[in-house]
Amino acid sequence: MCAANATTLQLDSSGNLRHFLSIEGLSRSLLVRIMDTAESFTSVTRQAVKKVPLLRGKTVVNLFFETSTRTRTTFELAAKRLSADVLNINIATSATAKGESLLDTIRNIEAMQVDMFVVRHAESGAAHFIAGQVAPHISVINAGDGRHAHPTQAMLDMFTIRRMKGDFAPLKVALVGDVLHSRVARSEILALRTLGVSEIRVIGPRTLLPVHPETLGVRAVSDLDQGLEGVDVIMMLRLQKERMSSAFIPSEHEYFARFGLTETRLAKAKPDAIVMHPGPINRGVEIDSRVADGPHSVILQQVNFGIPVRMAILSLATQAGA
Amino acid sequence: MCAANATTLQLDSSGNLRHFLSIEGLSRSLLVRIMDTAESFTSVTRQAVKKVPLLRGKTVVNLFFETSTRTRTTFELAAKRLSADVLNINIATSATAKGESLLDTIRNIEAMQVDMFVVRHAESGAAHFIAGQVAPHISVINAGDGRHAHPTQAMLDMFTIRRMKGDFAPLKVALVGDVLHSRVARSEILALRTLGVSEIRVIGPRTLLPVHPETLGVRAVSDLDQGLEGVDVIMMLRLQKERMSSAFIPSEHEYFARFGLTETRLAKAKPDAIVMHPGPINRGVEIDSRVADGPHSVILQQVNFGIPVRMAILSLATQAGA
Amino acid sequence: MCAANATTLQLDSSGNLRHFLSIEGLSRSLLVRIMDTAESFTSVTRQAVKKVPLLRGKTVVNLFFETSTRTRTTFELAAKRLSADVLNINIATSATAKGESLLDTIRNIEAMQVDMFVVRHAESGAAHFIAGQVAPHISVINAGDGRHAHPTQAMLDMFTIRRMKGDFAPLKVALVGDVLHSRVARSEILALRTLGVSEIRVIGPRTLLPVHPETLGVRAVSDLDQGLEGVDVIMMLRLQKERMSSAFIPSEHEYFARFGLTETRLAKAKPDAIVMHPGPINRGVEIDSRVADGPHSVILQQVNFGIPVRMAILSLATQAGA
Repeated sequence: MCAANATTLQLDSSGNLRHFLSIEGLSRSLLVRIMDTAESFTSVTRQAVKKVPLLRGKTVVNLFFETSTRTRTTFELAAKRLSADVLNINIATSATAKGESLLDTIRNIEAMQVDMFVVRHAESGAAHFIAGQVAPHISVINAGDGRHAHPTQAMLDMFTIRRMKGDFAPLKVALVGDVLHSRVARSEILALRTLGVSEIRVIGPRTLLPVHPETLGVRAVSDLDQGLEGVDVIMMLRLQKERMSSAFIPSEHEYFARFGLTETRLAKAKPDAIVMHPGPINRGVEIDSRVADGPHSVILQQVNFGIPVRMAILSLATQAGA
Repeated sequence: MCAANATTLQLDSSGNLRHFLSIEGLSRSLLVRIMDTAESFTSVTRQAVKKVPLLRGKTVVNLFFETSTRTRTTFELAAKRLSADVLNINIATSATAKGESLLDTIRNIEAMQVDMFVVRHAESGAAHFIAGQVAPHISVINAGDGRHAHPTQAMLDMFTIRRMKGDFAPLKVALVGDVLHSRVARSEILALRTLGVSEIRVIGPRTLLPVHPETLGVRAVSDLDQGLEGVDVIMMLRLQKERMSSAFIPSEHEYFARFGLTETRLAKAKPDAIVMHPGPINRGVEIDSRVADGPHSVILQQVNFGIPVRMAILSLATQAGA
Repeated sequence: MCAANATTLQLDSSGNLRHFLSIEGLSRSLLVRIMDTAESFTSVTRQAVKKVPLLRGKTVVNLFFETSTRTRTTFELAAKRLSADVLNINIATSATAKGESLLDTIRNIEAMQVDMFVVRHAESGAAHFIAGQVAPHISVINAGDGRHAHPTQAMLDMFTIRRMKGDFAPLKVALVGDVLHSRVARSEILALRTLGVSEIRVIGPRTLLPVHPETLGVRAVSDLDQGLEGVDVIMMLRLQKERMSSAFIPSEHEYFARFGLTETRLAKAKPDAIVMHPGPINRGVEIDSRVADGPHSVILQQVNFGIPVRMAILSLATQAGA
């Protein structure tokens, strides 16, 4: 599948969010608008009746070609708190068994008069492909596609940073781990650059770092202590099990010794640095439990902010015209 | 399981729909009433808030002993748009594992004060059996039982034909494919006859056609070109994969050569003929993509009309007395 | 996992139910309050619109580490009839696949601003462990943990007994079957003692009875006829298939011959004795069909009362302070 031009696909003629597929091509003001809208929803999730009727009567379809209980759950909660009807369709275990093509599956669910697809797929470009095919009234939200993008994760990370740090301009940010294969890292780097942070460093074994980091606007560092020097934000990445058993890294133990975030390593960063992780965390592999559960960690706040940020994206996409 | 008398089971003492198990025994006026009710719901599915409170506080149980994401999804959407609570129970993966009998399963869910069972089962007669057992306030909807019936599919097909063609009386209809083993075909033939079409032809390899077509009120034709001559409606059937690998047909390739619907073949039908298929389609097996996606195809309209037609059946069955 | 002190965990500072983990440590007046509240909900499940808005905007998470369609379904129905949003998370098939710890899973779902966990787990003490970890605003309901407790089942059984028999004080109750390994039996015995029945007998093969019955306040009898003599309530237990194939009992056939409840055996009990079973029943193993479906059986009433009793527990737990 080849990704169509994200910018033209994502925005309607007035520049509003029609689909949410990638951070690429989105303006700083749009990212800020998403965060401001999310801010207004944080109070909803704290009040006794956690419901607003914004999407009442709308049908949101969680179309997951790849299982992810956590991401599916946060989208389901976000949609229900906006009063939408939610339909969970796990394609891995259903239609493909009957040999139907992706496009036929989409056309069929679309014909059921649904309003939004939240798509998770193992192939890069799947959400773009679907967005290029659906009827004008339907919005597509990318909930992770292959190695390409995970833009709602990036937005909840940005929202967390803004909540903790306020202004993006002075921030030095480090991304640690398997940057090369991570859709989360790709989306985070794009969002951080759009929001204008001062510096982005990517840290990890050479085999897991991009070959030409400068084209991404980041600096590659292969030593963790050196990379963490003076940073405000540390964004840890999850080490995929399949990567661990491959030739990319020598062993889990050795990986932790060189790139695991411990309290000692964390001390290299600014005293008020925050530690982030998209979850689920591999304790003792990429992060030590004392750091994951320590005072610098904002990992659970990220999960918490995932709901209002996804509510913001769902509601903004519903309001756009064709 | 042996199917009880459908007519007496399906209707209450005033002739209203209590269960919806089979087209057999239903009057023309009842089928028209279902279609008229569905017509009133098509506007609901188009409006911004796609909800009516007709089934508010009612519990609809999707009781699927056989997996079918598509059918389950349309019933779930129909029930939610009527404001019902929906419970999805996949029996294939649950209670039977504990060795409970079908009747015990039914008695137990019934005891939870539910209002409606939507039943899908691999055995013919399962929905009738359940309807014969449930308490007076519960309605049973047959969502496909073995080779016996798939009456909601037949009703959405009739609704599609009425929308496209208006009057049934002058129509010549062809059913193409594995008519012998198809519950969809059985229900379609009964509905078409009840609604009084002019002619019904069944077309396919002799091994997949009924032995005594005349008892069904249809004419059997084993040549596709000849069978399509002058028809108004072509109802394609899905060729089951298990049939393809059996002795019933020589090969997928040869099947397509003889019975696949192509543009050339379609030209034998009336110029304004419509092409229908219950889905999911096997492109290049029973139908060519140019026909499936072409101007005569109403396949996606069928899916679309599946929602208001099922809303109609659910709401009519809820209103009946015991 | 080790179960924390149930009493201190379960009640808030005013003695209201904060979590519902075990019958242990709950007062008679609290059990009566649960039953009185359930009584008020029985009319809700009978009325046309079976909804009350008590939990509107609250999110109830069914966190099932062990599959149980029946228990999950009754909790889902109870929560929906209280107007809560329900999230079903089957951990057996999801997060653990990514190697996340139980505590991390809990912390993450908790961070999504949910209000209640309904927990089913194969290990004893799991619900207590979770209750000891969650934030002050979250309630935990034990839906069955290992061999330890199944307190909502016990409460619906008590509610059924009260409905059928009125006063607990004069009652003689027999529990029949695998008392030793049954969480249902453990919780039932605790509840019956708290409500002050006159006598509790446990009946079964010696290998399936507790070694020191007197410490539980019950009398052990290994002869069924003798044990049923003059009892008011017979609570049958389900014989687990895994137990049948082990050395605990000689054979299914022999088990039924010695401990299966038949009409002849039932005649030893009081003429108005009631027969209960938590389901699913093994017909012809622990109970004869004529008894299960006969006039003394209240098995389906138990299922029916399961909804208002669980509604009562969910709503009482939501009202408690921290």
